[in-house]
Amino acid sequence: MFSQTDFVHMERALALARRGMYTTDPNPRVGCVLVKNGEVIGEGFTQPAGQDHAEVRALKDARSRGHDLRGATAYVTLEPCSHFGRTPPCANALIEAQVERVVAAMEDPNPQVSGRGLKMLRDAGIEVRCGLLAAEAHELNIGFVSRMTRGRPWVRMKVAASLDGRTGLPSGASQWITGEAARADGHAWRARASAILTGIGTVREDNPRMTVRAVDTPRQPHRVLIDSQLDVPPDAQILAGAPTLIFCGNLDERHTERASALRDRGAEIVQLANAAGKVDLPAVLKVLGERSVNELHVEAGYKLNGSLLREGCVDELLVYLAPSLLGVDSMSMFNLNAPETLDGRTQLNFHAIDRIGDDLRILARFVPRAVPHPAPETGTEPAPQPTSN
Amino acid sequence: MFSQTDFVHMERALALARRGMYTTDPNPRVGCVLVKNGEVIGEGFTQPAGQDHAEVRALKDARSRGHDLRGATAYVTLEPCSHFGRTPPCANALIEAQVERVVAAMEDPNPQVSGRGLKMLRDAGIEVRCGLLAAEAHELNIGFVSRMTRGRPWVRMKVAASLDGRTGLPSGASQWITGEAARADGHAWRARASAILTGIGTVREDNPRMTVRAVDTPRQPHRVLIDSQLDVPPDAQILAGAPTLIFCGNLDERHTERASALRDRGAEIVQLANAAGKVDLPAVLKVLGERSVNELHVEAGYKLNGSLLREGCVDELLVYLAPSLLGVDSMSMFNLNAPETLDGRTQLNFHAIDRIGDDLRILARFVPRAVPHPAPETGTEPAPQPTSN
Repeated sequence: MFSQTDFVHMERALALARRGMYTTDPNPRVGCVLVKNGEVIGEGFTQPAGQDHAEVRALKDARSRGHDLRGATAYVTLEPCSHFGRTPPCANALIEAQVERVVAAMEDPNPQVSGRGLKMLRDAGIEVRCGLLAAEAHELNIGFVSRMTRGRPWVRMKVAASLDGRTGLPSGASQWITGEAARADGHAWRARASAILTGIGTVREDNPRMTVRAVDTPRQPHRVLIDSQLDVPPDAQILAGAPTLIFCGNLDERHTERASALRDRGAEIVQLANAAGKVDLPAVLKVLGERSVNELHVEAGYKLNGSLLREGCVDELLVYLAPSLLGVDSMSMFNLNAPETLDGRTQLNFHAIDRIGDDLRILARFVPRAVPHPAPETGTEPAPQPTSN
Repeated sequence: MFSQTDFVHMERALALARRGMYTTDPNPRVGCVLVKNGEVIGEGFTQPAGQDHAEVRALKDARSRGHDLRGATAYVTLEPCSHFGRTPPCANALIEAQVERVVAAMEDPNPQVSGRGLKMLRDAGIEVRCGLLAAEAHELNIGFVSRMTRGRPWVRMKVAASLDGRTGLPSGASQWITGEAARADGHAWRARASAILTGIGTVREDNPRMTVRAVDTPRQPHRVLIDSQLDVPPDAQILAGAPTLIFCGNLDERHTERASALRDRGAEIVQLANAAGKVDLPAVLKVLGERSVNELHVEAGYKLNGSLLREGCVDELLVYLAPSLLGVDSMSMFNLNAPETLDGRTQLNFHAIDRIGDDLRILARFVPRAVPHPAPETGTEPAPQPTSN
């Protein structure tokens, strides 16, 4: 169905898409390659929101070089859009250019539009193929897919620990367990996220800025703070610069002054309490999804990490393991209790393992738990699983 | 100094040497390739102790195929021996065969004989080169090198843990945290060791056999038990089969009966107490070195693991990390306290990282600690470092 040449051009389209890693947010990262008579005549990738999508960029590139698009093949890493958003539909642009064939890596994950762009192209007489290097394309927009299909971001929790699984000394000292290369790599993961989330515990311990500094990016992710009682000091570094979004739990009149001081610092405060009066974490994900957060990067401490895990709010762990031992009285990764039996343990799979400097980077994804009630007897579809590949 | 051809033949000699991985103990694993006019005319590797060494085996192989050795080159992964042990010196055999050139990967690590074999060859007019693929050759006999240079085995501590660094549930349940492939791989590491060491805690918890079962081997490693008060039940599985060596601490008349029952089960009991009346672990290593233990494989629990680490008795960690979380109240790897500051933490380096089935295998080596007193002012050699590469 796909030729070797198709693979080569789609690989190139994926490489182009990756050039938008830090900038397309909240749009997906998309790349497009236009090929005619075996020659690449145009290339493009999604520009920052409100500007050209990948297809339009590639068409402009080809035309600026004097090419006629009739008879060309377009390789796109995501189904061309079929609706008017901040830009006109890309499917229209391809039809108007009279390309002959469109090869897409994957369909648009939004169930309400999925397949419509491809149908528009087919209806216009264009030959359409979909599914080439789909896993790679999905990986590139794992957050966008999550938001479109689940209404919540893809949540990546970053932890830096010693080989014996400890994140800091009993004193709290944790700077630095991992090396410079791992810390820079961590900033690259921050940079691709729509937002970075932390908790009041980490603010108290480390007073972090939660910005991207070690890698070059024109866009800073939004910052999100989980702070039940609005305990963050108004001079905390996390409040400096762009507005920070603070989620809090039940408040009373004692908090009015605190809230006012934080708003003066530019913070937005959203009250979202669960039955216990604490922050309702699954509801936070829903709100962030509504606010177009694709990938949510979590850098928090023992307690909030544990709460997020227990409440099913984490999709993958990004663990940097340093070649050192910190000892049993040092801090653990997550406030998570042991299961009754080994069968009940939290299962993941190692998605990627890489050495970063002297450290080890482990990307591990949670294996969806079996549904805790008997399966229906017959003829029923299995329940949808959290997005993964 | 070495040609591409030299590399090829030495690689082959190393591959041959590896075929003795489970069998040459306590002798080093050595491979030999004989080459004449560009043709491999003989191959051999060390046979079980008391039988032919690699060189003699290769010479016999060449002769049995009707070759004249005069003018041949011998590739050996270790300097040929120069002394009469259970077999005559291999250097003599090469001289008698009138080979023209000998290429050795490394010198014999025994400081008392190092270089003598090569000198014998040179004195006989043979061209000798040493140092080709020395790191690989050293790795293959890391235990033999340790015993020869430090008088103690190379100690490899195996741990199977979850990603959050836990080795078992609070109940003690730990079978199985890692998958079948990792467990089989663990048996391959047992099989190459001269001896397997465990503690009374593990015997009580799991009643293990501490034998090699998941891989095929004609030789079972010796079994060593650290049991201060001779608490091991006489029907424990670790006492079944070949005699087990038990190290104990201070005993009194109450232990006489226990000791007698254990000896009836074939155990050998060695009393080796430190000032606290417990087993003197560094002294255990010395005794095991005297008893020709090259590689010591440790599979113990939290307490003994911690003691061995604290007393500087471990050279490398063999950690199998499973993609699961067990929680903070589960068992930790080592009873090891936190340092005062991060600078004081135990440092390792990741020697090798591999995926084994669904799990991750990490081989990590300890970085020698800086000498805790000021360096001498001038003209002094640096202190010798523990063997590593």
